[in-house]
Amino acid sequence: MAAAPYNQLEQEFRRLHAFRGALSLLRWDAAVMMPRGSADVRGEQIAALETEYHALLTAPKVTRLLDRAQANAQGLEDWQLANLREMRRQRDHAIATPPTLVSRFARATSRAEAKWIEAKRAGDFSLLAPHLEEVVQLVRDKAALLGQALNLQPYDALVDEFSPGITTNDIDTLFKALSRKLPSLINEVLELQSRNPALPMTVRITPAKQRSLVVEVIKAIGFPFDRGRLDESEHPFTEGVPGDIRITTRFDPGNPFDGLLGALHESGHAMYDLGLPQDWRDQPVGRDRGMALEESQSLLLDMIIGRSKPFVRYLAPLLEKHFAVSGPEWSVDNVYRHLNRVRRGLVRVDADELTYSLHIMLRYDLEKRILSGDLAIRDIPEAWNVFMQDRLGTRPTSDAEGCLQDIHWAVGSFGYFPSYALGAIIAAQLHESLHQQHPGIDEEIAAGHFGGLFEWLRENVHSQGAKISIQELMKHATGKPLTAAASLRYLESKYLEDTGNATEIAATGTT
Amino acid sequence: MAAAPYNQLEQEFRRLHAFRGALSLLRWDAAVMMPRGSADVRGEQIAALETEYHALLTAPKVTRLLDRAQANAQGLEDWQLANLREMRRQRDHAIATPPTLVSRFARATSRAEAKWIEAKRAGDFSLLAPHLEEVVQLVRDKAALLGQALNLQPYDALVDEFSPGITTNDIDTLFKALSRKLPSLINEVLELQSRNPALPMTVRITPAKQRSLVVEVIKAIGFPFDRGRLDESEHPFTEGVPGDIRITTRFDPGNPFDGLLGALHESGHAMYDLGLPQDWRDQPVGRDRGMALEESQSLLLDMIIGRSKPFVRYLAPLLEKHFAVSGPEWSVDNVYRHLNRVRRGLVRVDADELTYSLHIMLRYDLEKRILSGDLAIRDIPEAWNVFMQDRLGTRPTSDAEGCLQDIHWAVGSFGYFPSYALGAIIAAQLHESLHQQHPGIDEEIAAGHFGGLFEWLRENVHSQGAKISIQELMKHATGKPLTAAASLRYLESKYLEDTGNATEIAATGTT
Repeated sequence: MAAAPYNQLEQEFRRLHAFRGALSLLRWDAAVMMPRGSADVRGEQIAALETEYHALLTAPKVTRLLDRAQANAQGLEDWQLANLREMRRQRDHAIATPPTLVSRFARATSRAEAKWIEAKRAGDFSLLAPHLEEVVQLVRDKAALLGQALNLQPYDALVDEFSPGITTNDIDTLFKALSRKLPSLINEVLELQSRNPALPMTVRITPAKQRSLVVEVIKAIGFPFDRGRLDESEHPFTEGVPGDIRITTRFDPGNPFDGLLGALHESGHAMYDLGLPQDWRDQPVGRDRGMALEESQSLLLDMIIGRSKPFVRYLAPLLEKHFAVSGPEWSVDNVYRHLNRVRRGLVRVDADELTYSLHIMLRYDLEKRILSGDLAIRDIPEAWNVFMQDRLGTRPTSDAEGCLQDIHWAVGSFGYFPSYALGAIIAAQLHESLHQQHPGIDEEIAAGHFGGLFEWLRENVHSQGAKISIQELMKHATGKPLTAAASLRYLESKYLEDTGNATEIAATGTT
Repeated sequence: MAAAPYNQLEQEFRRLHAFRGALSLLRWDAAVMMPRGSADVRGEQIAALETEYHALLTAPKVTRLLDRAQANAQGLEDWQLANLREMRRQRDHAIATPPTLVSRFARATSRAEAKWIEAKRAGDFSLLAPHLEEVVQLVRDKAALLGQALNLQPYDALVDEFSPGITTNDIDTLFKALSRKLPSLINEVLELQSRNPALPMTVRITPAKQRSLVVEVIKAIGFPFDRGRLDESEHPFTEGVPGDIRITTRFDPGNPFDGLLGALHESGHAMYDLGLPQDWRDQPVGRDRGMALEESQSLLLDMIIGRSKPFVRYLAPLLEKHFAVSGPEWSVDNVYRHLNRVRRGLVRVDADELTYSLHIMLRYDLEKRILSGDLAIRDIPEAWNVFMQDRLGTRPTSDAEGCLQDIHWAVGSFGYFPSYALGAIIAAQLHESLHQQHPGIDEEIAAGHFGGLFEWLRENVHSQGAKISIQELMKHATGKPLTAAASLRYLESKYLEDTGNATEIAATGTT
């Protein structure tokens, strides 16, 4: 009898899982299939399901069951206890944001999003400013309520939604370690790369050819086409649930690798979701461990594996096969250089892995100051530009390529940005341990065998679901706490050794 | 203050409308886009949303609001009163089938559906029989409960779900009128047509060419591609809501017209849904007036307009344009003959408009006797075959082309079949009045102008939504009660004059 309230909770959360799956399909369809004029209809459907989801999750019945299950927890196993904790976590997050705040938030961000598009087009932040002011005020309210409920500082409470268990302290420590080394490393690498530039790639590759390459690659990786789809959309994304997982990418004829890298990135998310514990698929403990870990899986595939020499060795004959190309610019060496070029760019989404974290640190620094009131909304553009000049040595000439480039703040997404950089740090530390524990991995990847890679990831990362914290997971998987050390070792060894190896391969390639 | 409970009800039903739209998208995706292996996941999502829909619709709050709104109805307008009536109608239907019966029904029909596939493949009704027995017992329970709630005879209560306001008495009268004339008419037409057979059409037309023809035709009709989609699926269907309406068809290279006729049929449904009253789009009174009227709109387009001489005159140059075909078998005369061939076929879905009603009468007769217990489950095959022999002069040699051909009974759909024949009768009566009130319509259609047709339908049928009964609608639109007279006049004049006109056109065509 002791487990009865717990079992009832599993039933409730099974239903919520089905709602989440339905919502995910509604969003996927909106981005991939929906007729252009139907956004209003879809908006109402999503709002109705989200409202009902929120109502079911915050119903007094759930709270009562949680309390009763907690009081009778002695009969529960580890996974069930972790599930109970995650159930409460989801409910606490939901109940801290009352429906009135949710709907005010929805209206304010929807207005601000429209203004953001206008402001970005005009390159004029002042058009967005008053709307962002309103959004920020609501985010402050939300952060305060969440903070009280979760017993966290307001900004930490926002971070907790995306990177559970990670605090500002953790992030500061990690970012400080990167800041100490990255600027000089970037200088050194730019200097090295300028002496060995990649040959330009000017050929145009049709979307159909790019798609056929992508299908072969993600099939080799293990993407399940009988329980998943690959489509095209304006921005690549992953939607769905394990059992029906859907990724998208975007093909640009002038850019033969963007579609592939986008698909690899999303495949990283998809493979994570597929590897989640089968038995807990429809329960909170069976979900991913937040966006930081999600990003670690996508960045591992897109940035670390997908731009590595072994992967490029696997890729080169496929480029010839699907694109019908050859010549020195398609050599392993040149494709590798092309994929790993470092630039002092202004735009985050185009950034290489060496400069990427700096773009995130800028946003992290500013968004904390915005929320605390330290930085006034009107002063955002100048603060942004000064940071870019100081840390990356380049300064936007327009707000469009400065503080207006990302949609996140306009739609109220504060606390999300750190998860990108955390993901990169986690990915590098996992990658280092994978290499140590599985020394043949590079040769396997060069041969197009990804079984060993995903077996390791499934065992050490995916199959944990949301059972343990990110920090515990990292200790189990790598034997070490989460630090920036592996990330720095990875970047230094890859980008400083680059020229040497590249020259060597180039020399071999041209004899 | 009087309208307050009513306004709250509108709010509740707006939410239910959004749920229905989401459910419709989940079904559309399952048939058109979903990966093959994901049916289990989708099944759970649909069940969760349907359960919630049922719970919201039958909540005590809705009943209370309905009673209070009814008691304060004096301030409401016509449309609001009709909406209140339809709200109660939906709630009464839902509450009459308690969740336990719904879930037993779902399980039994899901087992029977699987057995039906097996039995049909084996051509052996005895494999299905015990499962059908279980389904029929549950349908009897449902019919009894619905009958009590709606104050109708059990079978009438089932019919009411699909053809509101139509009773067994009405159907008997209509079918008796058809039965008196059809058998001899069929004999006469078969005799006439055997003297002027259509030239065979053997060319294969690729799906891409068929699709391009269909897109041009349904664009001309007014199908809104900015708020709708055309896709392919195993069986043609229409899903979605006004504002995002999606039709499918199926292309068979060996059959150049099936894809077009399927698309016309579904466009008939889509145009009806699009023409529903805008202001009531998300309310019960803004919905279609049941399946009989839905079928009248699809059959009008697919059977009456789509196989008429004016339409074939419009179509002929398009066949040349999209299929790159010419020659005597593609002449207006031959295409018309081809589309209107009458046959003593065994299979309902392949039947022409002359024999179609007989297929329905067979099912109507049998399903009433099955439910009343007059006809034992094991005696269905023989009763079926005897009816076919008596009325259509042909007898199935296997249950697969006999009583196993339709899925309806296995999935518990009793009371649905009459709506197909009612739809044909309604369509013919509307078509006759349309011709009388709009004499230039044939010339417009031959010229590819469908504006006049749909203007008339929108004014007389679509824009009524569910405000008035089918019978009232027919009186308003045609000045007459619903009878089979127009249908018989239409069939006699079309099929008996056929040879004469066809010869005349053929003569012109060959000089």
